Amino acid sequence: MGEGLIRLVAVDIDGTLTHGDRRLDVAAVDAIRKAESSNLPVALATGNVLPFAEAAAILLGTSGPLIAEDGGIVFDPASGQEHMLGDRLEADRGLAALERAFGPIQQTRSSNMRLTGLTLRHAIEVEDANKILTREGLDLVAIDSGFAIHLRSPDVNKGNALRRVSTLLRVPLAEIAAIGDGPNDIEMLKIAGLGFAVANSDEIVKRVCTHVTAEPYGKGVAEAIEKILALRG
Amino acid sequence: MGEGLIRLVAVDIDGTLTHGDRRLDVAAVDAIRKAESSNLPVALATGNVLPFAEAAAILLGTSGPLIAEDGGIVFDPASGQEHMLGDRLEADRGLAALERAFGPIQQTRSSNMRLTGLTLRHAIEVEDANKILTREGLDLVAIDSGFAIHLRSPDVNKGNALRRVSTLLRVPLAEIAAIGDGPNDIEMLKIAGLGFAVANSDEIVKRVCTHVTAEPYGKGVAEAIEKILALRG
Repeated sequence: MGEGLIRLVAVDIDGTLTHGDRRLDVAAVDAIRKAESSNLPVALATGNVLPFAEAAAILLGTSGPLIAEDGGIVFDPASGQEHMLGDRLEADRGLAALERAFGPIQQTRSSNMRLTGLTLRHAIEVEDANKILTREGLDLVAIDSGFAIHLRSPDVNKGNALRRVSTLLRVPLAEIAAIGDGPNDIEMLKIAGLGFAVANSDEIVKRVCTHVTAEPYGKGVAEAIEKILALRG
Repeated sequence: MGEGLIRLVAVDIDGTLTHGDRRLDVAAVDAIRKAESSNLPVALATGNVLPFAEAAAILLGTSGPLIAEDGGIVFDPASGQEHMLGDRLEADRGLAALERAFGPIQQTRSSNMRLTGLTLRHAIEVEDANKILTREGLDLVAIDSGFAIHLRSPDVNKGNALRRVSTLLRVPLAEIAAIGDGPNDIEMLKIAGLGFAVANSDEIVKRVCTHVTAEPYGKGVAEAIEKILALRG
């Protein structure tokens, strides 16, 4: 591999920088610090809302762009601009259609803060929801993240968001690495030059990656970052 | 001191759990974990907005109430309720008055997310601002936090917010400890049963505390928590 190959690393938060209970893995905090101080900027990528990603970026000291709402938003700290890759209005239309079919559905606490989709409590089955959304001709999918049911545009994912990051920063995808653990990281892990699944990742995630770390969570992130820095020579 | 004296610890974030550059001190992450696993719930207290406090609570694994906007908001995770101790409308009136006097004033990026006050870029002097606010009979003060100029109700502070936490949880203030470093922590440190200033605190902060730690930042927090746990016996 050529010197200086990887110039940015995109890292998922939940289950990658954190333990399964969502608490930060101290090993990840040190690893992020090492990347940043080695001139390898870190871009956080989360299914959570932008204010959560911004708080994590401040507390961890990352300097790269932020991917929030599973790719619905790309925030570029260099310009201060938020790029919207999804459409909240369409999600509101989708919710209205679902409520006509199933009655009132409660949104999660953070749903009203979402700008490119919305999140529902587990009151309906995603299969049933997707049938309604298709029948109504809406440009939306319902996805069960485990935490909630997400309504969003079908082309919103962390991979397309990483493509936007690549364009904004003028860094080719081949020079970007990604680290993740979950199904919502797959598109990002596939299109990045190097894709690292931490050891606690689902099997379907490991299969799309160029590397699988020996250690889980933050220790896996530390391992991936050491590898990336070693490849740069 | 009696056994079981302290039942909750309120901890400032910036400069207390974090280094001066706002990055988490790893020592603080471990200390918070130790408190929570020792049945000493942690209540985070910040000048930042509630979504920031919520993100920090998730990433650190704290279980106590959250004090945000320097005491303007108390969030009780047990009930899911946000208690507003300040008035955004009054702050908007204050900004209008200041703009009539000084021309357009830019708010900070997070200002539009504030529910009990607002934050301005450093375009005006607080002394000048306070003269205008007094002259217009507004129930507001302008305070320079170093990051921004805050407009808020004069009785919004972390001390009054901690009093509200005490009422909500039915835990007397004497059984609550507080840890902080900055001038906006003073009211909280004064009314708590035990007040700990970390070593990097301003002198005026140390003077109101029952304890000053030997170590700064997260190591100071660890020291304070060890002390609190030791006092419980």
